[in-house]
Amino acid sequence: MTEKKLAPGARIGIVGGGQLGRMLALAAARLGLPCHIYTDRKDDPAIEIAAASTIAPYDDEPALSGFAAAVDVITYEFENIPAKSAEFLNAIKPVRPSPAVLALTQDRLVEKNFVSSLGIEVAPFAQVDDAGALARAIAQIGRPSILKTRRFGYDGKGQTLIREGSDLAVAFRSLGGQPCVLEGFVPFVCEVSVVAARGIDGDFVAWDVGLNTHEHHILAKTEIPAPIGDELRARARAEAMRIAEALDYVGVLAVEMFLVSTPSGKRLLVNEIAPRVHNSGHWTLDGAATSQFEQHVRAICGFPLGVARAHGPAEMINLIGDDIFRWREFLGVPGACLHVYGKSEARPGRKMGHVTILKSAERDGDELAR
Amino acid sequence: MTEKKLAPGARIGIVGGGQLGRMLALAAARLGLPCHIYTDRKDDPAIEIAAASTIAPYDDEPALSGFAAAVDVITYEFENIPAKSAEFLNAIKPVRPSPAVLALTQDRLVEKNFVSSLGIEVAPFAQVDDAGALARAIAQIGRPSILKTRRFGYDGKGQTLIREGSDLAVAFRSLGGQPCVLEGFVPFVCEVSVVAARGIDGDFVAWDVGLNTHEHHILAKTEIPAPIGDELRARARAEAMRIAEALDYVGVLAVEMFLVSTPSGKRLLVNEIAPRVHNSGHWTLDGAATSQFEQHVRAICGFPLGVARAHGPAEMINLIGDDIFRWREFLGVPGACLHVYGKSEARPGRKMGHVTILKSAERDGDELAR
Repeated sequence: MTEKKLAPGARIGIVGGGQLGRMLALAAARLGLPCHIYTDRKDDPAIEIAAASTIAPYDDEPALSGFAAAVDVITYEFENIPAKSAEFLNAIKPVRPSPAVLALTQDRLVEKNFVSSLGIEVAPFAQVDDAGALARAIAQIGRPSILKTRRFGYDGKGQTLIREGSDLAVAFRSLGGQPCVLEGFVPFVCEVSVVAARGIDGDFVAWDVGLNTHEHHILAKTEIPAPIGDELRARARAEAMRIAEALDYVGVLAVEMFLVSTPSGKRLLVNEIAPRVHNSGHWTLDGAATSQFEQHVRAICGFPLGVARAHGPAEMINLIGDDIFRWREFLGVPGACLHVYGKSEARPGRKMGHVTILKSAERDGDELAR
Repeated sequence: MTEKKLAPGARIGIVGGGQLGRMLALAAARLGLPCHIYTDRKDDPAIEIAAASTIAPYDDEPALSGFAAAVDVITYEFENIPAKSAEFLNAIKPVRPSPAVLALTQDRLVEKNFVSSLGIEVAPFAQVDDAGALARAIAQIGRPSILKTRRFGYDGKGQTLIREGSDLAVAFRSLGGQPCVLEGFVPFVCEVSVVAARGIDGDFVAWDVGLNTHEHHILAKTEIPAPIGDELRARARAEAMRIAEALDYVGVLAVEMFLVSTPSGKRLLVNEIAPRVHNSGHWTLDGAATSQFEQHVRAICGFPLGVARAHGPAEMINLIGDDIFRWREFLGVPGACLHVYGKSEARPGRKMGHVTILKSAERDGDELAR
């Protein structure tokens, strides 16, 4: 029988071995919690710093079994692991956030219906199971709009823009003919995200809202605090809290939102829920009293949550592909905190590291503290 | 041929596998630098999170050779490694700080002569090679005074207090009859320490001065900033800089000082130099823009040094022996950042972890950031 609340020395299983898993494992180590990484890639960056690892396909039940037996609690660093594997693991050791949360966020349609059901606004959307349904959806939502696969999309993959004159059958086929959602194109002012945590006893802590800038569908930059005014920042965090509570969520989650300006005022539309630590929360490693990685570990272990207070304004810049070769330049920027993920090859579009610039440290006048 | 300045991906060798080695390895991992631990104890806490390790005696030359061949730069987390081993390693790969610095700080007498030679005050001291020399030293320095072995002392080990009526021959024999230093007992107001770093190009960065409280000769608490006034804080940091420059130091060092109050004003006496990251600098992990561990790694790799600015006032409390069982209580303190070193057994006097309390986060009024 597994305790609901763990203690230092407990072993954490992390499904996925990328940079999020690596930063989770580093945060867990600070708390005296060794991590065991489960991944299907033997050169994943989390393996090197983890106490143990299992390299096997994500649906290999004997391997999943051995992994679950070796740990006290299980979490994941990406949401595209098979729902069946999450259920399988959860039958042996607690999976947090729960497999039910994972299943819900794996399907854009289910997720949007869920968010809407809470009375929280989302962009107009419609279910598209075939090319005929796409035509009906376009008639309802209009153009431009975005056709997205219901499952397995990330960083702009699994989506296509439908403009005036786009061929609907071609668009539907270009995504593999699988079940999709059509989303109305929202002329948003900006994208913001709330990164927050909910503990095992229902306590909820949110970091300040981040302003996100994307390039080529990949997050390029997050600025803290998002300059959207106190009222909208409070509303964004309150919506994230309602979502977390409705999901009976345990761990860190991120809620991406569009800020749109309408004649009747500014509105927030929820775009996506990520049931995990999130790129837009990386600034918390250096810029907040508790990082998102430590907070996630605290939450899934049943520890009290930490204070999310920011040390001051901050900016996180992703180092994508060749950007990583500018590491020395960034290290020389006053107040810059560099993170390098230890990936062997700097392929285009690959997240290789990030830099957080602490704006208050940049302006310091203390000569010896420089 | 080894480059003087390294890049992410370089491998760092750390001699010693305790909590300092562990925290160094965690900081190195953030920068994409895998660590290789060399220790003579197979259950040392740094091993678990390091990319590689060698378990062998500190004077095992074939093992040292293999270790040096596997890394790009070598550092150490404690100063009691054999000077000969440091020289041996340095002939293969650069050891930073240098073996010369290590040798100097391994001998209290040499260290005190060196500090004095810079015109920096130390407590009165005299060389004691035998019981006869002890009597002469007492005649010169008086009682109470403290007899310390020249080598291998730490946390109050290797020293004895000489009071009125103490038998000098017994005192000398109690330390094994080895070469000693007699130090005048200084009625200090408080002990402070400067933790600072010097880079490969001679740049110097100091954190704010810490006020240290000891219990049973072991550091119990460090408070930032030490409430000793701006002028003394500046003087303390300037002395640390002179010491680092005179040593052509590379890496993080700590300089412990006594603050004494005399009729002619307040004076700082240097007590000890630690050629490594230091317990009184642990607060920097959570309380400063750059931690001492990252800064040490930056320095020994020839990277630019980071900003040392504190986020605000902070207090670091060591968790010694059974204190570690209070981990949940500390985790619940607003602004408390817990570190657990992952040692298997909580023996009395053993440093098991620490907590840094960020005083500004404690007072935060933001409900959701809590």
